[in-house]
Amino acid sequence: MSHHVTHCSKEFSFIQHYFSSLAGEAALGLRDDAAIFTPPEGQELVVTVDGMVENVHFFSDDPPETIGRKLLRCNLSDLAAMGSKPEGWLLTFARPPHITEAWVQRFTEGIARDQEKFQISLMGGDTLSTSGPLVLSLTLIGSVPRGQAIQRKGARAGDGIWVTGTIGDAALGLKVLRGELEETSGWLIDRYRMPCPRVGLPLFGLASAALDISDGLVQDCGHLAHENGLHAVLEADRIPLSLPAKQAGAQWFKTCLTGGDDYEILMVVPPQKEKVLEKSGFLQTPYGTVPVTRIGVFVEGAPAVTVYDTQGTPMVFTTTGWSHI
Amino acid sequence: MSHHVTHCSKEFSFIQHYFSSLAGEAALGLRDDAAIFTPPEGQELVVTVDGMVENVHFFSDDPPETIGRKLLRCNLSDLAAMGSKPEGWLLTFARPPHITEAWVQRFTEGIARDQEKFQISLMGGDTLSTSGPLVLSLTLIGSVPRGQAIQRKGARAGDGIWVTGTIGDAALGLKVLRGELEETSGWLIDRYRMPCPRVGLPLFGLASAALDISDGLVQDCGHLAHENGLHAVLEADRIPLSLPAKQAGAQWFKTCLTGGDDYEILMVVPPQKEKVLEKSGFLQTPYGTVPVTRIGVFVEGAPAVTVYDTQGTPMVFTTTGWSHI
Repeated sequence: MSHHVTHCSKEFSFIQHYFSSLAGEAALGLRDDAAIFTPPEGQELVVTVDGMVENVHFFSDDPPETIGRKLLRCNLSDLAAMGSKPEGWLLTFARPPHITEAWVQRFTEGIARDQEKFQISLMGGDTLSTSGPLVLSLTLIGSVPRGQAIQRKGARAGDGIWVTGTIGDAALGLKVLRGELEETSGWLIDRYRMPCPRVGLPLFGLASAALDISDGLVQDCGHLAHENGLHAVLEADRIPLSLPAKQAGAQWFKTCLTGGDDYEILMVVPPQKEKVLEKSGFLQTPYGTVPVTRIGVFVEGAPAVTVYDTQGTPMVFTTTGWSHI
Repeated sequence: MSHHVTHCSKEFSFIQHYFSSLAGEAALGLRDDAAIFTPPEGQELVVTVDGMVENVHFFSDDPPETIGRKLLRCNLSDLAAMGSKPEGWLLTFARPPHITEAWVQRFTEGIARDQEKFQISLMGGDTLSTSGPLVLSLTLIGSVPRGQAIQRKGARAGDGIWVTGTIGDAALGLKVLRGELEETSGWLIDRYRMPCPRVGLPLFGLASAALDISDGLVQDCGHLAHENGLHAVLEADRIPLSLPAKQAGAQWFKTCLTGGDDYEILMVVPPQKEKVLEKSGFLQTPYGTVPVTRIGVFVEGAPAVTVYDTQGTPMVFTTTGWSHI
């Protein structure tokens, strides 16, 4: 049991040295008790928190530059799913002795790049000592014009089910890292380590409901089904896969649909809004064009998900991820 | 390395069962990607985060009811020091296998009592598995009328230095828990386990600067000294001690001044505002009257703290807490 005062003295210089360069105006130099943040006029705030534990959510030997960015991007993805704009973030860093200062430096350098990319800044933080694995917790605050936040609730029977990007790359990347699958380009591993949050996706006026796919397409679609009391009908051959995911072979297809860590957006779109999407196949964000694909439709029925294969047979899933739906 | 999907399935029911009763309107039933929060009109937001690690910031056998409340109250104290009103909070809960569901239930029951007392609610959270000690991270969001947040900066030479309540009880409580000091009433241990944040202290229009005492009176006063480029002169015999702290004996006095975990407010008050305070000796909050005591004054000079004992001799402190100032 270390004494609080001893701890804080070290904490002070540690924070100042590595984190102060990330701090924005609201953080008051990370020296005050709290950050002061003026919300943009007429906006609601959207707030989310996500944590990661070493050897549970990332590997000890993952590049430190990617770890903080992955956590930040998972949170950014939550905000993107609600159609909101990120403003700032707070970090809790529970540091075990094996995390060196050099490691922390690379960790913060990675985050600094994403801060610039997504135009956000650190508002506050806390660093702690732990004898266990590294634990990170990141709180992200965003803004959205009042009443424009897209939620999980709002879908109606007949609405189309759409996804951004491609599905399953991160799940296969984890398999590659575990040595269960071979892929030499590094694409799949990159997608596992560095999600691409769909920040700035113009969901308001388009989607009736949305969420970000973190637990796996089938499970997260199940969340939407439950929330809206509808049955989701998906067609397997419409689900967009990357070239490396296709090349991995059909035996990995179910992994793609249940594996998680996609951080793509699952959007529900009413029929009258679908035509434009069908035509272009893209949505614009400040970070480039995002491909969108219609993978199914919500119908009246039991709140669950059915995925039909190319023979029109419902696929059977056995992962625990799926079981609780 | 456990797989993300497996983890999330368990997480889902865990959250629903124990945390949903704490969730407010903004949390959207803890089922959406993020909380939606409408900041009160004309207000700035004040945001803080604090973490705790088992066996560093609390003992494994501390009553679970007190642990979450202590973390919440530490954050409430940060907001109180800025004169802001708490609105809502988010929690990351990194759970080791030895934390049972019964433990979590008692943990949330404790927090529920404080939610009611301080009129706040849970906005969101994340639960994780860890092989290490329990790690908690709590983000607290508050509001304050625009421009009225009190900061560490703002003190001038001649301003008086004031504290709320009594100093050193929690530090001595830790000594009692460690078996280094005897105190049978339980008062000191209670003060260690359950800080009394000075929520609602009317600082605006009164204090030129303030912070909450978490690292120890001398060290935190040093933070104020540094931030304002002033020298703090404190008089030892003015520093308010509780009866149990006095009864512990003079040999524990330095522990009281450097020990930390007080969560009292250190306020800097310009001379023209001091008269009313001197007269009453109290400030009113929605949670009752809070005793306030003048313990010294800021003067021109090196940014540091001198505490004069009753003989007029500067006291010497050797803790690491003090060393970095």
